[in-house]
Amino acid sequence: MTSFLLTNAKLATMVPGGEAYGLRPGGALVVKGETIAWIGKETDLPEAYTGLPKRDLQGALVTPALIDCHTHIVYGGNRAREFEMRLEGATYEEIARAGGGIVSSVKATRQASVDQLLEVSLPRVDTLIWEGVTALEIKSGYGLSIESELNMLRAARRIGQLRPIRVKTSFLAAHAEPPEYKGEPDRYIDEVCLPALEQAHAEGLVDAVDGFCEGIAFSPEQIARVFDRAKALGLPVKLHAEQLSNLGGAALAASYGALSADHLEHLDEAGVKAMAAAGTVAVMLPGAYYMLRETKAPPVALLRQHGVPMALATDCNPGTSPVNSLLFTLNMGCTLFRMTPEEALAGATRNAAQALGLTDCGTLEVGKRADLAVWGIEHPAELSYRVGFNPLISRYFGGME
Amino acid sequence: MTSFLLTNAKLATMVPGGEAYGLRPGGALVVKGETIAWIGKETDLPEAYTGLPKRDLQGALVTPALIDCHTHIVYGGNRAREFEMRLEGATYEEIARAGGGIVSSVKATRQASVDQLLEVSLPRVDTLIWEGVTALEIKSGYGLSIESELNMLRAARRIGQLRPIRVKTSFLAAHAEPPEYKGEPDRYIDEVCLPALEQAHAEGLVDAVDGFCEGIAFSPEQIARVFDRAKALGLPVKLHAEQLSNLGGAALAASYGALSADHLEHLDEAGVKAMAAAGTVAVMLPGAYYMLRETKAPPVALLRQHGVPMALATDCNPGTSPVNSLLFTLNMGCTLFRMTPEEALAGATRNAAQALGLTDCGTLEVGKRADLAVWGIEHPAELSYRVGFNPLISRYFGGME
Ligand SMILES: [Zn+2]
Ligand SMILES: [Zn+2]
Repeated sequence: MTSFLLTNAKLATMVPGGEAYGLRPGGALVVKGETIAWIGKETDLPEAYTGLPKRDLQGALVTPALIDCHTHIVYGGNRAREFEMRLEGATYEEIARAGGGIVSSVKATRQASVDQLLEVSLPRVDTLIWEGVTALEIKSGYGLSIESELNMLRAARRIGQLRPIRVKTSFLAAHAEPPEYKGEPDRYIDEVCLPALEQAHAEGLVDAVDGFCEGIAFSPEQIARVFDRAKALGLPVKLHAEQLSNLGGAALAASYGALSADHLEHLDEAGVKAMAAAGTVAVMLPGAYYMLRETKAPPVALLRQHGVPMALATDCNPGTSPVNSLLFTLNMGCTLFRMTPEEALAGATRNAAQALGLTDCGTLEVGKRADLAVWGIEHPAELSYRVGFNPLISRYFGGME
Repeated sequence: MTSFLLTNAKLATMVPGGEAYGLRPGGALVVKGETIAWIGKETDLPEAYTGLPKRDLQGALVTPALIDCHTHIVYGGNRAREFEMRLEGATYEEIARAGGGIVSSVKATRQASVDQLLEVSLPRVDTLIWEGVTALEIKSGYGLSIESELNMLRAARRIGQLRPIRVKTSFLAAHAEPPEYKGEPDRYIDEVCLPALEQAHAEGLVDAVDGFCEGIAFSPEQIARVFDRAKALGLPVKLHAEQLSNLGGAALAASYGALSADHLEHLDEAGVKAMAAAGTVAVMLPGAYYMLRETKAPPVALLRQHGVPMALATDCNPGTSPVNSLLFTLNMGCTLFRMTPEEALAGATRNAAQALGLTDCGTLEVGKRADLAVWGIEHPAELSYRVGFNPLISRYFGGME
């Protein structure tokens, strides 16, 4: 077991209730194996730790490592040409005729083997790792057939084995109807979604169950059928809710004790209250809002007022959010959604952990995992302020640099 | 002199008039010293080049290296706390009382030595270099005293010596009134701006003369006085124009044969026509538009219609655009300003070169500098489509990798 002492650090612990960002004077932290063993002033260091190897951080800022709690980072193909056609004035019909839209991602994902999915997804994951991310949620949802959904989840699991990052998977077959079930969402749920969930769960591939509740996707009733099965299997749920309209998805998710409800642009106060009562995290996805040029932002002030924990995530996906930077997402959370930089950073650490059901990370506290990000900046607000500049100096994953 | 052959490349030459992106079949390119000596099919390679060392690019995309033609990348301090205060609801008065606003950048810049300016600016420049940038404009304008303006330009010149990048400097003392000249812009121009320009030019520090023409900055008449001096010194001009209102700055700049007019959110058709007639490049700065949450975009359709060359730049600065990614700027040019990905890439290559008065780069053509970017992507639209993902494989600066 490796143990060491970090000294001369600024510690933004993100523990709520005290100073902004949980800033703590002292600047020393002991890592013992995978865990934070002690935090304080170097002069107060307990005898037992005085012999530890010391790393002088020269005043650098240490935060909990970042957590991206909503991604579709495993997918085949890309939609750059569709992006281009839209800007060249093509209609949705023309794009569909040219093979664009979610169908193109489904096609490319189905054609890819697990190894091929890994090959194209790992560079995207590595980009997040270079930003100090140590925990990552990955959804299925571009397979939309039993075998392809399982393959996406298998690729997600492999990422957690191949890279120093924890992967939490979400089963998202209820993402869209595949072409072969067009207009028959209920038959799709019966014949694909539920059996795939059973199988994926049996293989140990599912950490949570997700859905897309929207006019263009699945109704609350259809989502409830998927959630009922999740409940029967003992799996937590989460939901893409209130992105384009208000169907009451967040309240539905809250009624199942959901970990999170995500997007939330059209969330109303009843939904906010339901989430507050259930302890459901509000995951904001400004990348999709930006790329879709939406103008209605999620009700941040209401969420704040009702004490709903707010998280921020990249939503990294090939269609509506080809966003591969969690740091830039912090800036968008502030610039577009008017979150404060402290809320933004909590949204990619403490509250992102909660959104994934992780209780052992997201803050710097004795007993938590030593998942740390060391930044070459003076003030934590700089993480949200800058765009396209990565000040990461080093990253510890369970104590390993 | 090093010479070599690149093979198995996709060449997006950005030469206009043919295929989109100037895409050329063939995929082979000969670099001789600093220069592109030949482009074509490997099977057509002239005898003289058959013995050259060969680098197989395995199908990677080669574009002209990127050019960032509008930055304020040399500055002291940062404005993260001001960004944070604004999001916490502070008024402009409260921010000013806390020492915020451009004055804080001026103060920090004046306090810094040339070496200190370099130390904080080089990581920002390196971030652009990692995105394949080989030419960079850097403005003064946070010194606002003779000595401090010169120091900014000295730091800018040193960057061009210390890094494999060409730096074009712009003298921008007419950026804001410093506190000691508050309410006396004409006296500031007489006592600081014009003498500093003479001195900076005498030291060889000035490649172009810039100004900020705006209600909150300098009037067209004041800018004209600075431009007259530039003309007398034989220096080209450019202008921050029509960002927050329409003062006719673009037409003024065009009447001096300006290299570029920049920002342009409030540009009208008369200004567009004046720019078209003068061959003045329209430099679009979506970073500032995004950070300021503006809603009026520059008249891209009009500029397109009148054949005004459009460029895109980061505007990297501590106040309104702490944006350090030219790739992300391409995305914003598309997403926010509805430029096509091809226009966006031309805006960071061919047209950016024109905005800097550079005739030896910006396209892949025989006789041009071998400033190349090699990308691990299939289609050039991917450069604009993705956010926060850097697919650069390698970068050649005058033939040097
Ligand atoms: Zn999503
Ligand atoms: Zn500027």
